[in-house]
Amino acid sequence: MYQTFYRDQTQFYVAVDCIIFGFSEGRLSLLLLKRNMEPAKGQWSLPGGFIEAQESAEVAAARVLSTLTGLDEVYMDQLMLFSKIDRDPGERVLSVAFYALINVADSNREQVRLHNAYWRDLDDLPALIFDHPEMVHSALKRLRIEASTKPIGFNLLPERFTVPQLQALYEAIYGISIDKRNFRKKLQSMPFLVKLDEKDKTSSKRGAYLYSFDKERYEKAKLEGIHFAL
Amino acid sequence: MYQTFYRDQTQFYVAVDCIIFGFSEGRLSLLLLKRNMEPAKGQWSLPGGFIEAQESAEVAAARVLSTLTGLDEVYMDQLMLFSKIDRDPGERVLSVAFYALINVADSNREQVRLHNAYWRDLDDLPALIFDHPEMVHSALKRLRIEASTKPIGFNLLPERFTVPQLQALYEAIYGISIDKRNFRKKLQSMPFLVKLDEKDKTSSKRGAYLYSFDKERYEKAKLEGIHFAL
Repeated sequence: MYQTFYRDQTQFYVAVDCIIFGFSEGRLSLLLLKRNMEPAKGQWSLPGGFIEAQESAEVAAARVLSTLTGLDEVYMDQLMLFSKIDRDPGERVLSVAFYALINVADSNREQVRLHNAYWRDLDDLPALIFDHPEMVHSALKRLRIEASTKPIGFNLLPERFTVPQLQALYEAIYGISIDKRNFRKKLQSMPFLVKLDEKDKTSSKRGAYLYSFDKERYEKAKLEGIHFAL
Repeated sequence: MYQTFYRDQTQFYVAVDCIIFGFSEGRLSLLLLKRNMEPAKGQWSLPGGFIEAQESAEVAAARVLSTLTGLDEVYMDQLMLFSKIDRDPGERVLSVAFYALINVADSNREQVRLHNAYWRDLDDLPALIFDHPEMVHSALKRLRIEASTKPIGFNLLPERFTVPQLQALYEAIYGISIDKRNFRKKLQSMPFLVKLDEKDKTSSKRGAYLYSFDKERYEKAKLEGIHFAL
């Protein structure tokens, strides 16, 4: 009886697609594949593939990303399941989208190129297959909400960073230019941003004070109702 | 060749589960079913069911919720796909969770009772099957983030409401008591909350000023970088 209950139901192919945003020199890019097999050979797509029998979606996403781009140990968050009837013209396939924001380092630039994968500027994306444009749009929206309510960006900066560096990161994520004075004012209300006694003098003679993000103070501030909000 | 490519892959049963939070008299509750069929007969679960061949997950969720609880026209957001290997001990089933926050009105109280569904206080939930506790926990976390960054709560209040009413709603969503003075201070920084010239005198002799949420001003404020943040 238990068996019958399930056996009447439809089964679906379920894929994963990975939306990997890269940060480098004040700009965001997106990791894309030029497909070398059918369907849609020669077209651009997100790195994606099917979930296998013994995998969770999370495990499948890590395997697919590693296999297709060479990138290991990328911490991805799940975005959502995309399941419109005609999203894949070849066959009914559901797809779980995952996303991450990482630094584009020289090391992963070489790594991905060996796999026929490319970092493409977010402002100049090629046409993508299926509903991949919708996935990218949704992921970017989610990333912006995350960045505005949690300190997710600090992982991408050096341990000691300047305010202009932090502002450049947020301008890249939001895709807008931010008023300098308002930005500094907001930072001043966050007790977990610690102004150090040192200056970075690489980009100007006067130099810019270095800051660090204090995780312990952040956790304490949260309990007191002081939130990260940029 | 196109066909072969897909046919090698594993197919999965995919279900939907609905996490419907109800707001009533300053408290949150959760809509649950007492299962009257196998598997897990007699146990408590979220309203859920399988996606059918010609449905998207969103369409399936609306159908399942309506069939199992009688609730129509509930706007649900997708939470995420739950896909751990052993999440359902009977068979490998993936499940997409959806969530919503609605008012518990007398009308839907009667409606759901006819369907063997129950509003259970969120602070006093019965044991739930499978990974449903994890789903509820994740949905509540998402709901709190949404409520703190978007004006989602105003739909649950009368068109003209008092600050204590708004505060009670947010205390229910966050599950904590909020400092009255800080709360009022935050509200004052939001130009889209309009103080009216009338008072509500039902709960105190002195009365409490009525407010309304101005959607147009809200959209304008957003463009100017003034955000909703409670």
